[in-house]
Amino acid sequence: MSVSIEDIRNKQPLIHNITNQVVANDVANALLAISASPMMAYAAEEMEEVATIADAIVLNTGTLTDSVLDAMLIVGKAANRLEKPIVLDPVGVGATSYRQKSIALLLDKVDIQLIRGNAGELASLVGVEWQAKGVDAGVGSASVGEIARLAAEKYQTVVFISGEADVISDGRRTVYIRNGDPLMTQITGTGCMLSGICGAFIAVGEDVFESAVAASATYAIAGELAVEELNPIGPGYFRPTFMNQLYHITNSTVKERLNMQEEISNE
Amino acid sequence: MSVSIEDIRNKQPLIHNITNQVVANDVANALLAISASPMMAYAAEEMEEVATIADAIVLNTGTLTDSVLDAMLIVGKAANRLEKPIVLDPVGVGATSYRQKSIALLLDKVDIQLIRGNAGELASLVGVEWQAKGVDAGVGSASVGEIARLAAEKYQTVVFISGEADVISDGRRTVYIRNGDPLMTQITGTGCMLSGICGAFIAVGEDVFESAVAASATYAIAGELAVEELNPIGPGYFRPTFMNQLYHITNSTVKERLNMQEEISNE
Amino acid sequence: MSVSIEDIRNKQPLIHNITNQVVANDVANALLAISASPMMAYAAEEMEEVATIADAIVLNTGTLTDSVLDAMLIVGKAANRLEKPIVLDPVGVGATSYRQKSIALLLDKVDIQLIRGNAGELASLVGVEWQAKGVDAGVGSASVGEIARLAAEKYQTVVFISGEADVISDGRRTVYIRNGDPLMTQITGTGCMLSGICGAFIAVGEDVFESAVAASATYAIAGELAVEELNPIGPGYFRPTFMNQLYHITNSTVKERLNMQEEISNE
Repeated sequence: MSVSIEDIRNKQPLIHNITNQVVANDVANALLAISASPMMAYAAEEMEEVATIADAIVLNTGTLTDSVLDAMLIVGKAANRLEKPIVLDPVGVGATSYRQKSIALLLDKVDIQLIRGNAGELASLVGVEWQAKGVDAGVGSASVGEIARLAAEKYQTVVFISGEADVISDGRRTVYIRNGDPLMTQITGTGCMLSGICGAFIAVGEDVFESAVAASATYAIAGELAVEELNPIGPGYFRPTFMNQLYHITNSTVKERLNMQEEISNE
Repeated sequence: MSVSIEDIRNKQPLIHNITNQVVANDVANALLAISASPMMAYAAEEMEEVATIADAIVLNTGTLTDSVLDAMLIVGKAANRLEKPIVLDPVGVGATSYRQKSIALLLDKVDIQLIRGNAGELASLVGVEWQAKGVDAGVGSASVGEIARLAAEKYQTVVFISGEADVISDGRRTVYIRNGDPLMTQITGTGCMLSGICGAFIAVGEDVFESAVAASATYAIAGELAVEELNPIGPGYFRPTFMNQLYHITNSTVKERLNMQEEISNE
Repeated sequence: MSVSIEDIRNKQPLIHNITNQVVANDVANALLAISASPMMAYAAEEMEEVATIADAIVLNTGTLTDSVLDAMLIVGKAANRLEKPIVLDPVGVGATSYRQKSIALLLDKVDIQLIRGNAGELASLVGVEWQAKGVDAGVGSASVGEIARLAAEKYQTVVFISGEADVISDGRRTVYIRNGDPLMTQITGTGCMLSGICGAFIAVGEDVFESAVAASATYAIAGELAVEELNPIGPGYFRPTFMNQLYHITNSTVKERLNMQEEISNE
């Protein structure tokens, strides 16, 4: 990997998040834990300027409303002009037609560098049938790798599906990272924090695909290290323990524990 | 009790919350800790659809605004049509006339299955004088049991007043549960999390009254177990410790520690 | 100091906060930890009434929008009429012209008793050049003491700049408090919680300057005590440990550890 957590600590990128009300605090703390600077702002009136000062933008539709969508469109278009990278976390895109339409609009008007979601969300974006439940991931027929490839092709972007294995694809290369721990799904915001952290990695990396891979690896391994520390096991102490792991994790630990496979598509 | 925490773990109901900005994260984590699926969404445009996928709805007026109220009215009416149960947590109803009017409108337009609040809030809903302070519970003249009965009759619903003792009434039966710990009032969101958890219990139970009793017992006992674990005593570690207790608590522990009395009204 | 944490525990003031979505939960918990009563409400319709029941008001522009600004103007003017003290935390004032204009309007229409921010924010308010990054503090040429004095004179108020040393000035007296710990900048909301706690101190104190000094001392010393307790060092467990320290700290501990210098201007 050409980019690592150490690059974030050196460059301390400013990451602007239009995230959701439920997890804004967690996303800010996770970014601070890796020495990035979080910014959260929602007023349409300041989105142009915010785009000029941010190093990357993270858009999360968890508690989407029309005014939030307006702010996303403005900051997204400005970021495109300024060539600042954008992560989209299409939370709950399959859950309601309002989200479906809003996220389709976003993807139409704004050039997104990385879509980070769960399998159900990405399946919805490419029209593959999938059993989702609300904003949760669910299960489906097509393989997650296939969905990632399809979505990457359809939206001409890098796609990162998190789950039991994280799958990252640019349509040609597809990488599977099998780290992390199932307990991470028992705490709210682990997906949203991951999207925030992807923002920090793509802000400092040269290549979006490599940045997404590094973000996945670092995040999942910090998560499994945190779970190993818990006694008793339970969701309560995961968050503070995880924040400490994000704060202390080194690139050499990430390399040591990384469980990654790659597939190259010949099409 | 005909319903228990194990039913929630088996059925994993989807609970839609229009809750307040202060505690949304805590409510989501508390629901996850008991294996329910939290959903938080606020856009009026998606409330009809959200009602169709949710197993229960929780409405919390902690940071009420007109657009939040609109969303509540839409999701509430849809839930009524679909026979999905609704919990109302009328946070701060006595504090301002804006809340009083908004909550009166909600109670007029939407059929609520469970009102969960503190004594001051329920006193305000039935017009009993009470010394409240802002959004806190306060103290008053009428007995809490009386207020619960009056409110249950007036609104033809089940009423759950949490406090030193939790009081649950359907107007005829009134149950007192004396578990929990005073430290629980020193952390924000313990009432709001409880309302969320009531949503999960009424989603899986046959009978709203029984579900509210089971929610009260489970929640209060998880709370007292958490406080027993704290060393030193203080509010800081209550939340993570409590989340672990919610995650691990069994119905047999609840039965063992339950301190409950029942009164039957003859009127 | 004429006011201390014990006064807050005795009087339990009700502090109304229009704060930001990222930290509302932390601010509420910090106020509860010192036995104050937090209230968070955002609806313009109830701001007049909220001003009548609150003992102090805290306005924080972290996630400012036009509707939030409207609510701030209403509650601010009402508080002025009722002689309730107001703390302004001008989060990110230098970051965008939208915030600059909005905060200038607030300062023009509402009489503020205490401005609490970081050096970059206060530099922006007095037009001193400063290298800020987003909503972070940054570094600049003028001394922080100078900026505090200038701002206190310009806005005829008390100014509290938090940082490596906290600086509090009323334009004539300037106090430096060198307690706290750099780790406190690695967690989101430490500034916002401090502003909330300033609200509690000015609610119970006779003199705004003295209240700000007491708030700074108590908060910074609780912070350094919390950091001393951490093992391993890291941001994850700072928050719960700090909440416990706020809950337990005594005025005699504050006096013992206080590192304070005072300058009197002769102009």
